[in-house]
Formats: sequence, C-alpha cells, structure tokens
Amino acid sequence: MPRHLTIIGLGLLGGSIGLGVRKFISDCKIMGCAHRPDSLIHAQQLGAVDEWTLDIPQAVREADLVILCMPVGQIPIWIDKIGPHLKPGTVVTDVGSTKASICETGAKMSGPGVFVGSHPMAGGEKTGVACARADLFLGTTCVVTPTPSTDPSAVDRVEAFWTGLGMRVVRHDPKTHDRLVAWISHLPHAVAAAVVGVQTEASLDLRGKGWTDTTRIAAGDAKLWRDIFMENRENLIDAIGQLNAELSELVQLLRSGNANAVQDWLSRRAQRRTGL
Amino acid sequence: MPRHLTIIGLGLLGGSIGLGVRKFISDCKIMGCAHRPDSLIHAQQLGAVDEWTLDIPQAVREADLVILCMPVGQIPIWIDKIGPHLKPGTVVTDVGSTKASICETGAKMSGPGVFVGSHPMAGGEKTGVACARADLFLGTTCVVTPTPSTDPSAVDRVEAFWTGLGMRVVRHDPKTHDRLVAWISHLPHAVAAAVVGVQTEASLDLRGKGWTDTTRIAAGDAKLWRDIFMENRENLIDAIGQLNAELSELVQLLRSGNANAVQDWLSRRAQRRTGL
Repeated sequence: MPRHLTIIGLGLLGGSIGLGVRKFISDCKIMGCAHRPDSLIHAQQLGAVDEWTLDIPQAVREADLVILCMPVGQIPIWIDKIGPHLKPGTVVTDVGSTKASICETGAKMSGPGVFVGSHPMAGGEKTGVACARADLFLGTTCVVTPTPSTDPSAVDRVEAFWTGLGMRVVRHDPKTHDRLVAWISHLPHAVAAAVVGVQTEASLDLRGKGWTDTTRIAAGDAKLWRDIFMENRENLIDAIGQLNAELSELVQLLRSGNANAVQDWLSRRAQRRTGL
Repeated sequence: MPRHLTIIGLGLLGGSIGLGVRKFISDCKIMGCAHRPDSLIHAQQLGAVDEWTLDIPQAVREADLVILCMPVGQIPIWIDKIGPHLKPGTVVTDVGSTKASICETGAKMSGPGVFVGSHPMAGGEKTGVACARADLFLGTTCVVTPTPSTDPSAVDRVEAFWTGLGMRVVRHDPKTHDRLVAWISHLPHAVAAAVVGVQTEASLDLRGKGWTDTTRIAAGDAKLWRDIFMENRENLIDAIGQLNAELSELVQLLRSGNANAVQDWLSRRAQRRTGL
C-alpha cells in the first residue's frame, strides 16, 4: 500500500479516492494537485487530501503512487508532464474510461516511473468533488490494463490499491478493455441519449419510472462523454451497428406478424436480464 | 365513485386496483372475476376483492364500474363477453397499454353499458397479484382515451375513479395515445432488450449501475410485451426508425472526427434529460 499518494485532479473520482484512502487505508499521506486551486481547497476541507500544490515536481516528488483523475483526453498530457519528476519505482495509474491510447502513452512515459492503466467503473451522472464519497468504489469493478511489457510488481501494487478501496479487480489488455466497455457502457450511454432525443413534449408528458431509469445516464457530463466517445469511436460505431442489427431483427419479426417469434425475441433477452 | 366495482383479471394491476380502492375509496363492494380461481383466491386473501366468481353474468350483473385487467390481446374478447350482461349505465374501462383497437371494440360493445379506454401507466417488470400494492398508482399518470362518440359523463366517472387512486389523469384520443406510448414506453423497452441482446459474457462481467438501470425494463414479461408490440407495431417500427436516425447522426459525427459536434449532440440530450 502507498505511504505517499498523489491524486492529480480532484473531481468526483479523485475526491472519492482520497476519502476512501482516508477511511480504508491507514498511514498514507495524500497530496493533491491540479491546474487550478478551487477543487483542491474544497478537497482539503472535505479531508480528501492532506495538502496540495499547483507545482507538478513538488506534487509527485515523494509519491510512491500517483493517480491521474482527469478526463480521458487530458491523461496523456499529464503522463508527459509528471514522468520526468518521479522518483525510481513510483507507480502511476489513472481512472480513464478508455485505455488503448492512454496505455500507449503510459508505456513511453519518460523517467524512472512505471505506468499501469486502470478503469475504476464507478461514478455516475454527478460530477465534482462536492459529490465525492469514501464508499463510491465499494463493491464496484476496476479493470486494470497492463501490457505484456508492464512490470508485474507494479500491476500487483495497483490491483492491491483498488482492492483496498473495496473494488473487485479484473485484468484485460487495453484494447480488449476498450471493446468491452464500448458494449457495456458507451453504447448504453449513446442509446439513452438517443431515447431522450426522439421524444416530443407530448410523449415526455407520459414518461414513467421505466423511461426515467432507462435514460438516467443520458444526463451525464457531455464534455467527459465526448472525450470517451471520441477515444473509443471505432468500437462504439461497431456496437451501434450491432444494436441496429438487433432492432432490425425485431422490426422484421413485427412486420412478418409472427407473434410467437416476437415473444421469443423478447423472452431470450428478458431471461438473460433476469438471470444476472 | 362506484358502489359496486368488478375487477376482471387479478394480476399486479387488478390486485393493486382492489387494494387501492379499499384504502382510498370507502364504501365500495369489490367483485373479482377471472378464467381460473387461483389468483382470485389469492386476491381475496390479500383483501383486494370482497368476493369472487368464475361466472361472467354474475360477476358484472350489479356493477356500476367494470375494469378489465388482462393482457391487451384478451381485452377485446372480454368486452364481447361482458357486454350483454351489464345493467344500463354501467361503465367499462380497462388497463391496456395500447388503445386503438381496444377502443374500436369498446365502441361496438353490445348491451346498455358504455366503454371508456384507460391506460394507467404503472406496473413494472414484476407481475402477479402477490406483488399488488395499494399505492402502486399513487403519483403516476393515467391516460383516458374517449372517442368523439363516448358519453362525457362516463368519461368523467372513469377519470374521477383514477384520480381517487392518486393518479394524474390526461386525455388523448386512442390513436394519439398509441403513438405517444410507442415513443415513451415501447421504444425504450425494445431498446433495453436490444442492449441486453448485444452483450457477451465478457462484457456483462463489466456491467455497472448505469447498464443495470438502462436495461431494467428488459426483464418485463415477454408475453405481455409481445401483445403490446404486436398491437402497436406500426408506431413502434416508426419509433425504432427515428432512433436509428438519431444514432446514425451520432455515428456520422464520430466518423467526421468533429469533437465539438459530438459534445453538442450529447449536451442537447443531457440538458433535456436534466431539465425534467
């Protein structure tokens, strides 16, 4: 477990990591860093960091673990910024929802540190350090994405850290990760947004609990999701294509007037959903 | 308010109407009727009906309000069965999720009763009288669907009944109703099922709260939803077509590499969802 942890970016995830470490991992000094002081001041008030600085070399100098908690588009930039200032053996990880290009940059990080990609699958449509919670990660899944050349002991340290915050850890290579999350996370987001987009005022007036649940994630931060969609666009386009094929199959069954086949189509999916 | 209410079909909705009447509407005798005794016995044990019979003429003879609570495909059959046995002035309504063909049959109901279509928008993926609750309808919306020839006083009585169970009542003609619910209810169901259908075991292993909420309704009873989809298939096919157009627009923006346009697409839908 880290003795000196540095969290860069104090939003919902960065703040929750700080509070979680404070609660579940003892004897660890937490340093905060970001571009601007606002969220750092707030994070310190909440107890998510012990101290903070805007100075990058100072922020990471003593760290044995650094966690990058900014939108996916900015993570490679921060990998380049911190690399030269790390001490030997420092492990760097992140919380980005896409992994291929981040891990490619991480593999080339300058200096004596080691990068291991992470994707803690927690959060939601709320953002900002004010929403941070020590138990945000409890019972959720973290995907850790080493490459064949990643130092195994660094991978172990990152996995132990997420486990310490109460997460189930699974391992995938970065490209497999991106393909899987396109299906299980990015596609549902795109679809929920589209189900909002097609409504009229008159149809929205009849919304019930079902619609509200189905579209909840569409309220998520557009800038964050823009980065995720752009990073993972090839996989997301494939996933949308497969969804279209599913719906085309249903349309064909409806057009054919074959009620049994429609029931079968629905039933296989209902059973699968119920069985989880 | 009815003094003699007959509920035909004692599942989640029929049972909840009985319990709701018992709780919110005093001095009303509730008769239950169905094809088979099982759910009727259970409904009586739960207090959702005062007495029950399998004999249709006996079930409706004294009723001033009859509510048909079976899957949409069976409602027209029951309208034909009960019509000849009603006393003058009896109002018949239903709980079907589609209205055009049911109200067409209702307008031709034989005998001295009056049919008024209803769609109380409550329920969920659970079914059966065991899940019935007096407050199932509280705060939800009921669409009442008179035609130009429906007796206005019968419409008033049906609306007063649903209001008495705690519902907000809105009025639409049957065809408008079917078009609106295709967008706000049937499309989300089809989409949720498709989002289940495209997953692999590996992607399902990474599911989180977002996916779980988005797909919850896909667990709904396949037979019930088959009837709804078949009844409303023209509208549902149109709604799926419009969803495909929304997603095609997103795919084009992703392909163009225009991150600002992707953010704008997401942002308009996120704002709309947040503003509700």
